[in-house]
Amino acid sequence: MTTNDPEDASSKKISRRDALKLAGVGGVGLLLGAGGMNSWLQGPAGSSKTSTAAASATASADGIIPFYGKHQAGILTPMQDFICMAAFNLTATTLEDVRKLFQIWTSASARLAEGKFIEEESDNPHLPPADTGESAGLAPMRTTLTFGLGASFFDERFGLAGKRPAPLVDLPRFNSDEIRKEWSGGDIVVQVCANDPQVAFHALRNLARIARGKAVLHWMQEGFQRTGAADPSGSTPRNLMGFKDGSNNPNVSEAATADEIVWAQPSDNPSWMAGGSYMVMRRIRIRIEVWDRSSLDDQEATFGRHRHSGAPLSKAGEFDELELDRKDAKGNLVIPANSHVALSHMDGKVKILRRGYSYSSGMDVKTGQLNAGLLFICFNRDPRKQFIPMQQKLASMDKLNEYITHVGSGLYACLPGASTGGYIGDTLF
Amino acid sequence: MTTNDPEDASSKKISRRDALKLAGVGGVGLLLGAGGMNSWLQGPAGSSKTSTAAASATASADGIIPFYGKHQAGILTPMQDFICMAAFNLTATTLEDVRKLFQIWTSASARLAEGKFIEEESDNPHLPPADTGESAGLAPMRTTLTFGLGASFFDERFGLAGKRPAPLVDLPRFNSDEIRKEWSGGDIVVQVCANDPQVAFHALRNLARIARGKAVLHWMQEGFQRTGAADPSGSTPRNLMGFKDGSNNPNVSEAATADEIVWAQPSDNPSWMAGGSYMVMRRIRIRIEVWDRSSLDDQEATFGRHRHSGAPLSKAGEFDELELDRKDAKGNLVIPANSHVALSHMDGKVKILRRGYSYSSGMDVKTGQLNAGLLFICFNRDPRKQFIPMQQKLASMDKLNEYITHVGSGLYACLPGASTGGYIGDTLF
Repeated sequence: MTTNDPEDASSKKISRRDALKLAGVGGVGLLLGAGGMNSWLQGPAGSSKTSTAAASATASADGIIPFYGKHQAGILTPMQDFICMAAFNLTATTLEDVRKLFQIWTSASARLAEGKFIEEESDNPHLPPADTGESAGLAPMRTTLTFGLGASFFDERFGLAGKRPAPLVDLPRFNSDEIRKEWSGGDIVVQVCANDPQVAFHALRNLARIARGKAVLHWMQEGFQRTGAADPSGSTPRNLMGFKDGSNNPNVSEAATADEIVWAQPSDNPSWMAGGSYMVMRRIRIRIEVWDRSSLDDQEATFGRHRHSGAPLSKAGEFDELELDRKDAKGNLVIPANSHVALSHMDGKVKILRRGYSYSSGMDVKTGQLNAGLLFICFNRDPRKQFIPMQQKLASMDKLNEYITHVGSGLYACLPGASTGGYIGDTLF
Repeated sequence: MTTNDPEDASSKKISRRDALKLAGVGGVGLLLGAGGMNSWLQGPAGSSKTSTAAASATASADGIIPFYGKHQAGILTPMQDFICMAAFNLTATTLEDVRKLFQIWTSASARLAEGKFIEEESDNPHLPPADTGESAGLAPMRTTLTFGLGASFFDERFGLAGKRPAPLVDLPRFNSDEIRKEWSGGDIVVQVCANDPQVAFHALRNLARIARGKAVLHWMQEGFQRTGAADPSGSTPRNLMGFKDGSNNPNVSEAATADEIVWAQPSDNPSWMAGGSYMVMRRIRIRIEVWDRSSLDDQEATFGRHRHSGAPLSKAGEFDELELDRKDAKGNLVIPANSHVALSHMDGKVKILRRGYSYSSGMDVKTGQLNAGLLFICFNRDPRKQFIPMQQKLASMDKLNEYITHVGSGLYACLPGASTGGYIGDTLF
């Protein structure tokens, strides 16, 4: 907002708070001058032609992340504070109607990312308002909208069965899965993230509204992490088990790393997926009350990390090297082989980009326990080689399984980004 | 946070952003220098002796609102961005155990309000950690914890039936109520508000945890409004119907107004309620999809206000005078008699202090519609003379009833504040 004041634009001061926020949000210390009318947009000039990731790294906490770009925003984008996510099932019966849906969703999304109503208000008060209005006066808040297609999208309805990409497999049943249909799958997934829950809700609700007649909601889930205001240092957020979550996330600001881990590659994909990725969603219920009765020793052995610092066991710093072979004086592994960090390390050869949120959905009326957990989201270039083998290992051996249950699941092909004038899905339809 | 930097303490600059934030949060332009170690606390020196309202009006968006005081915080306190609220039922069988519960809740609450763990961590890793830990490193975020007692608290179990205050009636069934037991009542209610959802969740979860053996959760609900970061101007927030909500809220920073509207008075109350208030909770489901299909005309006639400005119909400004008798050229009332604003005006004679939040609980699996609405909360000095007559009028005539359903309900006697060294409820037990 400092930069939203025209008087500040020339002799711009960056306060310690703003600097911390930017560092926290972007992980990159790029401070760029803003100007013109649209000063919420802090990306470099002509940012729609640069990669979304680079642009997003420079957006302030309440600013604009461009919707159009080579890749969809909301994948490499440094995490926002809130998520509102839903799956839709198509009621449309023709590919033409599906195309229309993505066209109206695209133009609405581009406006929502800029903090605008989905379309200009009509002057006719006898009509329902074009936009539901609860975002009036609110800043853009780094809103991103990310679209993906489930396997069911490629069934016989729209003649696209031949275009289903090989990595979009049906996820296997993992050990101890208790997947419920009502929290899983869907023809289309939409991930809305923003630094404000009302802004995120508004965006998803309006997408659902303008889908009427073409698609209906299948499931919806909100999530959160600690806000940037509560932790201006931008340190790794903690999950509801009290542990830092995401310390080992790959640094995808390097293009080669992003290509290796996140972006679908031509060798495994049809050309329409160029610039796309694969999103895995797992709704993971945490048995909060059981966890809360376990000892600190046990909790730390479960993760393989110290709770307070986030450091690997026996180390002092969160980012200290993981030494999985190291043994104590008695010859026991310092980091237990069945700990979460040991198993998910996968010999350093398999990585995913995690982008999950905590969720809390009140009380489970059946048990009287908290209905809370992790809305696990990750992006990977090929789930057959990344998420699936990793989850197979975790599902069979992870000590964490004493405390968690996977109750929802989805795998989605996230479409390439759209160029200005194009629409999400235009390479496929 | 600017004031959290010791170097800034002497030559303190208040940025435009911070000034707007303070104005928005407090509604009061008081900017007070901070100093010492505990610079999150921005109230005047010795603020625990001033009224909570005065102290809270000066707390920064991430600061401390003192827990101890004549009144409980979270009543007159300018609204925070998030709520996490729950009702508990007692499993304790003796008054002594109830007393112990409130004593441990009080000391935990005072620490939570300061952004601390509920108690110092033990050095013994073979024990479960004293605190669940997900708030580590997070600022206090204006956390308030407010405790109330339901009518069932005063049944035969603890010998307190004779102490039930007269205003703590059983709420009548209102027209078109569809109240569900699982979202209603409870022996005890705890309202946690904070400017961060993880901080609020953490507080409530830890209160539930330390209640083990004495009380169990009965219901729990999270809520939100737009964050201060999304609207630094601090204008009236909008509900999920897109309308400004709370424009007519009384100005309770004036002590006489607060006495008249909010605080229990000796004439109607036992002495243990001196400094207390009565909280009404109504879980109000909004039929979002039906509302979204109604015309702007119809929506504005429903509220009696313009959607964009929040002004009474035919007026330009949100705070312009309500002229309920005014007629148009055809002799029709400009503000329909069955509009929400006309009915809730109650001839200007009956007022309540509203403090509600929006909620969104995903999708209703039975209908496929959004499970969202308003977690209506209000405080009043005597519900028999304030909330009940107002709601009877609204329930019978409000045009808004086409779009909403009350599905949860509760009335609670909010205890007086505790002094340092005392505990919440010490005037009663």
